[in-house]
Amino acid sequence: MAFRPARYFPILEWGREYRRDTLVNDLIAAVIVTIMLIPQSLAYAMLAGLPPQIGLYASILPLIAYAIFGTSRTLAVGPVAILSLMTAAAAGKIAPQGTEAYIQAALILAVLSGAMLLVLGLLKAGFLANFLSHPVVSGFITASGIIIAASQLKHIFGIDAGGHNLFEIIVSLVRNLGSMNLATVIIGLASLIFLFGSRRFLKPALIRARLSEKAATIIARTGPVIAVIASILAVALLQLDEAGVRILGDVPRNLPELGLPAFNREIWLQLMGSAALISLIGFVESVSVAQTLAAKKRQRVDPNQELIGLGVASLSAGVSSGYPVTGGLARSAVNFDAGAETPAAGAFTAVGIALATLFLTPYLFFLPQAVLAATIIVAVLSLVDLKAIRQVWSYSKSDFSAMAATILVTLFAGVELGVTTGVALSLFLHLYNTSRPHFALVGQVPGTHHFRNVNRHRVVISDTALTIRIDESLYFANARFLEDTVYCVVSNRPDLKHLVLMCSAVNRIDASGLESLEAINERLRDANVDLHLSEVKGPVMDRLKRSHFLEELSGNVYLNTYDAMEDLDLDCVQAAFSKDAKTTSPDAIPCPSLALAGFERA
Amino acid sequence: MAFRPARYFPILEWGREYRRDTLVNDLIAAVIVTIMLIPQSLAYAMLAGLPPQIGLYASILPLIAYAIFGTSRTLAVGPVAILSLMTAAAAGKIAPQGTEAYIQAALILAVLSGAMLLVLGLLKAGFLANFLSHPVVSGFITASGIIIAASQLKHIFGIDAGGHNLFEIIVSLVRNLGSMNLATVIIGLASLIFLFGSRRFLKPALIRARLSEKAATIIARTGPVIAVIASILAVALLQLDEAGVRILGDVPRNLPELGLPAFNREIWLQLMGSAALISLIGFVESVSVAQTLAAKKRQRVDPNQELIGLGVASLSAGVSSGYPVTGGLARSAVNFDAGAETPAAGAFTAVGIALATLFLTPYLFFLPQAVLAATIIVAVLSLVDLKAIRQVWSYSKSDFSAMAATILVTLFAGVELGVTTGVALSLFLHLYNTSRPHFALVGQVPGTHHFRNVNRHRVVISDTALTIRIDESLYFANARFLEDTVYCVVSNRPDLKHLVLMCSAVNRIDASGLESLEAINERLRDANVDLHLSEVKGPVMDRLKRSHFLEELSGNVYLNTYDAMEDLDLDCVQAAFSKDAKTTSPDAIPCPSLALAGFERA
Repeated sequence: MAFRPARYFPILEWGREYRRDTLVNDLIAAVIVTIMLIPQSLAYAMLAGLPPQIGLYASILPLIAYAIFGTSRTLAVGPVAILSLMTAAAAGKIAPQGTEAYIQAALILAVLSGAMLLVLGLLKAGFLANFLSHPVVSGFITASGIIIAASQLKHIFGIDAGGHNLFEIIVSLVRNLGSMNLATVIIGLASLIFLFGSRRFLKPALIRARLSEKAATIIARTGPVIAVIASILAVALLQLDEAGVRILGDVPRNLPELGLPAFNREIWLQLMGSAALISLIGFVESVSVAQTLAAKKRQRVDPNQELIGLGVASLSAGVSSGYPVTGGLARSAVNFDAGAETPAAGAFTAVGIALATLFLTPYLFFLPQAVLAATIIVAVLSLVDLKAIRQVWSYSKSDFSAMAATILVTLFAGVELGVTTGVALSLFLHLYNTSRPHFALVGQVPGTHHFRNVNRHRVVISDTALTIRIDESLYFANARFLEDTVYCVVSNRPDLKHLVLMCSAVNRIDASGLESLEAINERLRDANVDLHLSEVKGPVMDRLKRSHFLEELSGNVYLNTYDAMEDLDLDCVQAAFSKDAKTTSPDAIPCPSLALAGFERA
Repeated sequence: MAFRPARYFPILEWGREYRRDTLVNDLIAAVIVTIMLIPQSLAYAMLAGLPPQIGLYASILPLIAYAIFGTSRTLAVGPVAILSLMTAAAAGKIAPQGTEAYIQAALILAVLSGAMLLVLGLLKAGFLANFLSHPVVSGFITASGIIIAASQLKHIFGIDAGGHNLFEIIVSLVRNLGSMNLATVIIGLASLIFLFGSRRFLKPALIRARLSEKAATIIARTGPVIAVIASILAVALLQLDEAGVRILGDVPRNLPELGLPAFNREIWLQLMGSAALISLIGFVESVSVAQTLAAKKRQRVDPNQELIGLGVASLSAGVSSGYPVTGGLARSAVNFDAGAETPAAGAFTAVGIALATLFLTPYLFFLPQAVLAATIIVAVLSLVDLKAIRQVWSYSKSDFSAMAATILVTLFAGVELGVTTGVALSLFLHLYNTSRPHFALVGQVPGTHHFRNVNRHRVVISDTALTIRIDESLYFANARFLEDTVYCVVSNRPDLKHLVLMCSAVNRIDASGLESLEAINERLRDANVDLHLSEVKGPVMDRLKRSHFLEELSGNVYLNTYDAMEDLDLDCVQAAFSKDAKTTSPDAIPCPSLALAGFERA
């Protein structure tokens, strides 16, 4: 394949068609997103335990990088709540918050996770993210949202509190509640009420006031900006900072310096695992947002190119004093609603944030930390999805147990352990479930050519020729289970002469499955039972032809099960068409692995 | 379920029917197996780096334990080559060979691996062994056989040599070849030639001499016994021990003392991982031997009860100064051929070995170590299965790569790392393969009701309604891949109004799969495309009914694909029945994930 620059630089594709009206739309969207991003960047930096300017820096260069390399037309990248929490957890293992080493660790995390995403993208290994199952990701996000909200309550109360898990956080909050600051509590609670209210009621109210839905959506999203401005004015005018309200204070008014964070082999190695988790979680989140938005316009995002785009974005955060970034749901939705048409909107937003860093920060001096905490709480509580938990519970107990483990471990033992536990458990459960597949003893439905599960239908079975339907691909984890089932059936039927394996749902047979079939064939031969196959799929048959199995098979391969039974026990097949066909009972052959087939399994 | 003693004590079942002629058959088999087991037990103890009596001890109590708890009628347990090698590798990490701590480590391994098997059996967790795929086990055994054979060459040459992997062993052999002992080399090579020859040519010769095949088989197996007797006589008469031939020497003439090996928390913990590998490998080997033999008589072995039987056997080895045991292929085959009918034959063999320990060992004083090494080499080289490697290579490149990794890592980095690498790689490859499933765009075969893959057949497809066949269960690792495929198809077909997912080969849909279907449904709705399903299986439908998906589905669920297309694009379906039906080209829709469907994948 020839090297096509546009493959790796999507900007070359949309840049060619860039027109004046596209520019206008992108500029408008950029202004709106910039206004929204300023308080968010400051808040998430606080959540990550970093100085406020780090949050702003993470919203400049990464946006430009994504504009060049990303494939989503409307994704808005920058700091997000979950990655801020994960950054805090990882950097906290290296040094305490507030130290230079802690900040360096955050930068290293950005470089490492960006590099990992970039390498995965170049290797086209985006599929790795697929091993994070939906219930695990959803459980992880819910648990993280709860942890984040709880951790921000101290700012609402104006107290010092700590804790590394939900239990510790709550205990610490309760212990320190005595020292709460009244002015802070008022500001904090007022902001919470205002933000929840504007989220809930402002949009419908604006629509009732005859605004277009689009305008109403955007204005409703500016709640945080209004809270910020109102609270700054209140603190400045009433001199509440002297009453103990903690404020943002001075934010350095310069742009980030470029350069790699300090290199220390041991620390970089120590942060590898955390960076891997941050990159995977960030990617999964971002790509699902990007796909949702792209689908609305029948556009596509290329997951492997997205890895490159997000990788370069995080890398450039790391080299410009920022911390790990990814595509955020809220800001991308605003960007989309505000009419952004190309990634250029992201680049314009970056310019907006840079200008804000240079000229706006002095006006934010009196911004109360309680307001930032309130914006975080309101944002993350929308991540808590209790409905999803209930749905997974009713749909699949196996998925639910992976989800519950993720939530509990994340809440009480930490984010990194939580997500790894969830992934490991969901992989194990998947393998376990497919290792005990659905096998059905099938018999002929009287008067028809159809063969159905004896446990679900009234069917006729033969004394000398039985058919077992295999409802799963045969691979190493279930191959031996098939052997057990076959031997059980054979040892229960002394008159058996023929066994047919019906393979209509077998999508693949690996070398272990083949070896089990060979062993079954040989052992049945020793027991004077012929083995036959029916309804084998094309690709599976192609594969079997490469082995000696078909030559050694004691029986035949039939196109369909009816042909097989007609050939192997014509009397029985004919009897099934008579008026008084005798159907069998479901437990005609008491093999535990067949009993499974009668029930829905969790 | 009520407690049925016979469930856990199979002896109660076969013991009730025990008759005089069964006793005679079992006794005859026991005598034959005892004669074979004596040199084997001594040889495997030497391979494990343990004093010879440990090998005999491992052949007494464990056999009685298995007779009580095991389900196979003819399995003969005792020390085997692979577990001896694994024991040497594990105990060697604790202390050097020849020390008391090394022996204690071997005993601890027996207790731990026995306890693990027992617990797995009581938890009915025998399925865990299924995660060792055939190619990994076969590759591991082949590599172990090569390592074992190489490690025994030093005894054939009568030199000192060491090395922990094949490379080191060979280098050490070559370096020390100068100090080889001529008498030893002559004995060693003569034994090798005799043993290989008797294995190869004795049985056919005996059959030509009119012996029954059964008798010929058994006599041919006594080659090692003949070599032992002949070499003892040669050494004793020619005083070859004074010429530097290393001999077995004194073996303590007492029965093992009972008791747990010394307890040291740290050492027990350190041996946990090795014990787990020993128990899994031992179980997998034994159960496949037991099933092969049981099938010949239409008997069954219960894998979970086998865990209990083998667990108690290894445990009792550990508390009677023995080392890990399992069912061996060679001795079980002899036991079977010699006519053993019940596990009592094993108990009688135990008595035979006990008597030999008490009264026979003095006569083995002059037994040359080179002869024991020769019996090991001949035994393990039959484990080396190059044909299996070739077969797996031609059948599946994916399985082959797991096998090759197992072999190479086992040969050059050690047995434990070898088997863990193989298991991890085979799990990963399985997940990887199922994460990129076979999807096919299907079209109507002109003039029929059938729908087939556009890449394999000349078919008619509609402009407004397409069908994609999913050839895999939908689970988290491939759910997103389905989304990508669907979006690619939709973005390639601007006129598309309906998309049908044909689910005939979908055996299960997990919560992630469901969520992907929901996302597809919603995003297609945004793009004004209706989503339909066809040929959904009963159990999958049962499950879907527990969610809200079917209510939210923008389209319908059809019993079969023809019905769907008739409903969605009647003109196209009718056109396919006309004389000049226009078939489409395979690359009508250039989506990479659909292209896969045209090819056999490794």
